[in-house]
Amino acid sequence: MDYPNDQHPAAPVRSGIPEHGRIPKYYAVKARISALVDELGEGGLLPTERDLSERYEVARETVRQAIRELVLEGRLRRRGRGTVVAGPKLEQPLSLASYTEGVRRQGRTPGRNLVTLDRFPCPEALAAETGLTRGEPVWHLERVLLADDERVGLESTYVSVARIPRLDADFEPDSSFYAYLHQQGIAFGDADERIETVLATPREALLIGTPPALPMLLIHRVSRDTDGQPLERVRTLFRGDRFSFTTHLSG
Amino acid sequence: MDYPNDQHPAAPVRSGIPEHGRIPKYYAVKARISALVDELGEGGLLPTERDLSERYEVARETVRQAIRELVLEGRLRRRGRGTVVAGPKLEQPLSLASYTEGVRRQGRTPGRNLVTLDRFPCPEALAAETGLTRGEPVWHLERVLLADDERVGLESTYVSVARIPRLDADFEPDSSFYAYLHQQGIAFGDADERIETVLATPREALLIGTPPALPMLLIHRVSRDTDGQPLERVRTLFRGDRFSFTTHLSG
Repeated sequence: MDYPNDQHPAAPVRSGIPEHGRIPKYYAVKARISALVDELGEGGLLPTERDLSERYEVARETVRQAIRELVLEGRLRRRGRGTVVAGPKLEQPLSLASYTEGVRRQGRTPGRNLVTLDRFPCPEALAAETGLTRGEPVWHLERVLLADDERVGLESTYVSVARIPRLDADFEPDSSFYAYLHQQGIAFGDADERIETVLATPREALLIGTPPALPMLLIHRVSRDTDGQPLERVRTLFRGDRFSFTTHLSG
Repeated sequence: MDYPNDQHPAAPVRSGIPEHGRIPKYYAVKARISALVDELGEGGLLPTERDLSERYEVARETVRQAIRELVLEGRLRRRGRGTVVAGPKLEQPLSLASYTEGVRRQGRTPGRNLVTLDRFPCPEALAAETGLTRGEPVWHLERVLLADDERVGLESTYVSVARIPRLDADFEPDSSFYAYLHQQGIAFGDADERIETVLATPREALLIGTPPALPMLLIHRVSRDTDGQPLERVRTLFRGDRFSFTTHLSG
């Protein structure tokens, strides 16, 4: 039987090797380093590129490419001059609950760093998406998302100034925006979300501290309050190597 | 005001340019090609690399890197020897409905190509995830997913042989598996899903026909029938440049 019994059902079938059996050399090295990563366990220090290239008798560039992909996939992380085995991806529920709540549920401490808070007239595209009026003043709140002081994402929230006129005066930018809305007597009714994978732009990569062109998960949200009135448009970018999203479906 | 009024709320803030204003040369070219892509519209033919490198007065390698990223992001597609503007990503709902239904809803014709159908004793990891018994026979059904004859994904389904003993005899591999379950009197109760971004393995890239290491969206599903009995474990890989997923959230 060509299907190994210990194959994990979540893993690529036949370890990702095509039926014709030919794979790029770096991928064979990647598979071996991947097995080593499993042995080392979370936090374990990977041997140096030089050690690995001697061990597997390949060029250092080949080892480098294998490690680069394992870093992009979130199995390894750079730490100082070394490379260590990463922990599992954080699992964030797709729900009306806030980022804060999702991160706390996993025993991490959520945080945010303010990038910008400004107001501008609602542009055409935002009006069309949300039901706000073109030209009415909207806030744009942009924050870097943190988990245990690690930068993991970047969030832009667009919300009508009329709804929360004192946002610039009495909102603490490193606190939960949803808790603030709640204090203002505003409650979420429903939301539409869309999730896709994109590459980080140079600005995003710099703000989040990731290598440029790291695959990211981008979540678009348009939400309404309990009266069905437009509430916010959110664009949240999460590190693809650090996050996954879960949902429960029922009939 | 430094926030342009016509900025689309879904787009990266300030066109992805860091506050210090310095960007890699290829990214400046990418931004210009991106504007050209908007002008050309879906199906429009991009000028050649040579033409673009002359127009923007940069090396062909710089143009090539910009185009490569726009292809990875699904804004451009290779067609024969040329490069054309891609259509919008398909929006697939996260729901108990099947792939078939989701694709049809967007006016596309769903299809599947069988890769493998085999049976093997349920491994430890699959038993732990699903509640099946270790060692009981399970089917593994692996198919390439098509939309309008274009290969867009790869799906592995694991299901107990005891539930559908005649799968190898009376299931048409290019038809809907969920329709087949329905015919056997089996109905979905609920499912847990997890979505993440991964890189395609060489085998996956070959089967789906994508460049290797293209960012993919991977959906893990564990479902149960209406009696809460384990039904299937599914691992579905979608081209990240062609798909996004939507969900509606309510309180």
